[in-house]
Amino acid sequence: MKRYVVGVDVGGTHTKLALLDLRGRILAKDSFLTRAYKKEEIVKAISDASAGLIAKRGLKKKDILGIGIGVPGLVDFKKGLVFYFVNIPAWKDVPLKKKIEKATGLTTFVDNDVKVMALGEIAYGAGKGRSNVICMTLGTGVGGALIIDGKMRRGASLVAGEIGHIPINENGARCNCGGAGCLEAYVGREYFLDNIRRELKSGAKSLVRVMVKNRLSRIQPEIMMDAALKGDAFAKRKWEEMGTHIGSALVGVVNFINPGIIIIGGGIAEAERFIFGAIRKTIAKRAMKVQGKAVKVLKAKLGNDAGVIGAAEMVKRSLQ
Amino acid sequence: MKRYVVGVDVGGTHTKLALLDLRGRILAKDSFLTRAYKKEEIVKAISDASAGLIAKRGLKKKDILGIGIGVPGLVDFKKGLVFYFVNIPAWKDVPLKKKIEKATGLTTFVDNDVKVMALGEIAYGAGKGRSNVICMTLGTGVGGALIIDGKMRRGASLVAGEIGHIPINENGARCNCGGAGCLEAYVGREYFLDNIRRELKSGAKSLVRVMVKNRLSRIQPEIMMDAALKGDAFAKRKWEEMGTHIGSALVGVVNFINPGIIIIGGGIAEAERFIFGAIRKTIAKRAMKVQGKAVKVLKAKLGNDAGVIGAAEMVKRSLQ
Repeated sequence: MKRYVVGVDVGGTHTKLALLDLRGRILAKDSFLTRAYKKEEIVKAISDASAGLIAKRGLKKKDILGIGIGVPGLVDFKKGLVFYFVNIPAWKDVPLKKKIEKATGLTTFVDNDVKVMALGEIAYGAGKGRSNVICMTLGTGVGGALIIDGKMRRGASLVAGEIGHIPINENGARCNCGGAGCLEAYVGREYFLDNIRRELKSGAKSLVRVMVKNRLSRIQPEIMMDAALKGDAFAKRKWEEMGTHIGSALVGVVNFINPGIIIIGGGIAEAERFIFGAIRKTIAKRAMKVQGKAVKVLKAKLGNDAGVIGAAEMVKRSLQ
Repeated sequence: MKRYVVGVDVGGTHTKLALLDLRGRILAKDSFLTRAYKKEEIVKAISDASAGLIAKRGLKKKDILGIGIGVPGLVDFKKGLVFYFVNIPAWKDVPLKKKIEKATGLTTFVDNDVKVMALGEIAYGAGKGRSNVICMTLGTGVGGALIIDGKMRRGASLVAGEIGHIPINENGARCNCGGAGCLEAYVGREYFLDNIRRELKSGAKSLVRVMVKNRLSRIQPEIMMDAALKGDAFAKRKWEEMGTHIGSALVGVVNFINPGIIIIGGGIAEAERFIFGAIRKTIAKRAMKVQGKAVKVLKAKLGNDAGVIGAAEMVKRSLQ
């Protein structure tokens, strides 16, 4: 009986690995610095660390259902091909599934990290037991995943889920994706910080100015959060504006897709208390009645383990 | 063997009925004026006309797979409950499925007319054989339907598909739905005409002014189409603006859902030559590369028969 799964969460900084049972419980963990390895080397690093975790628990290859890997980039799930990794420019069109399978002899599945996180959340987290779920991650960029009628929906060319590139204004600012007015061009990390710096340069009053000793380039989301927690009105307003922008994009998603839950995770989502109120208010105010009542906006629950738990869940679901 | 289906298309003005075989071919047709009947009476009108069509072809109840009905309103597909009909205010929370089944003794399915039209288009029309399809109808309002991985997706409370209520501007004008900046508030029939009247009042030059003898209340989409066909620059621009607004909403749908086809139908879609170019241009310019390349924007193909063909297809799909 194959009763265990290896979950791998490849991050820009760290790669986390875990051995899990089929109920998503973590039995052993490992991690390494992603940047310490180059393209081909990381295949070996993942394979070796996986084998190590399996051996550590006295298990054999025949006990393992497979390996699931979440990566921060564009992935062809069917082929297990990683088109690119965010933050790792040297990685282009890597057939990661095949390489790991060859190295380990274990069935492997690879997908984008937000989709993987979403599977974890519907299996064990904020979306447990729900079948119409939208997931969103707030960080450097804005990621998304779309679960409809209980299944991950990948679209006609397997790249569905780009919730950050829903335009919220027809004449909005240029977005890195080539479009204009995209949600990400308002709430992505650098856009958010640039906007704050501009307002401060134009004379907005804020504690933030003192906190960074007037060196505006030092402003980071963490500082904006600190300032908001200290009661700074400017910082609170900027987080609320972020929530309103996110809410505007979600109104369209709510009206069109009619989801039961929207789960929001990622680094910046830690500023929950300031963002979530504005998101919920915008949806309550602008979404259609039936759809607005049907949806709950919740924070992701699995935290740092979301990646490895979701990756393991992906293996289970793919083999069922 | 049950080899025939009755398809019913309840419209604001006419109700059309057809007897079809299982390949979607129409064998006999009938129709009546919807407004000639009140709530309870229309159940009898549909039942009688259906029985008439069946008898006309010398068939019996045992030859009929079922009755499919498309209605212009909000429907709970599972229960066959019509919450309301657009244009027929007296109809509220009608259990149409049960009533027709009781009257005819035939299995009946009821859904919103745009969803029904979408099923027809993926079975026999513009979306034949495709599994990721968005449908949109342009008319008094803007309707939509969402087919993902080959199936109609109805959402957590069965009202998914409201593509007309995707906001395209954060600070846009109020929409009838209670929201603001919705696509429908730009391109729905009355909003579109109001905007035209306002521009003409402010002095815009156009042939339209002459065509309606300066009585702006007489302006209708048909007149705007005539004027555009005659080369009127103002009329052409207004249709292109409509296309750009629609394109803006579709960019978000394309990036997030990654559909293979978008099918556009409905009365105003007849102004195809002016609208479609602007829609395609907006998507090409603003959507993400992979998603933008994957999608085609096509005109609905089944025309006036879309409703009855789609209604018959709904019966087939629901019983398979």
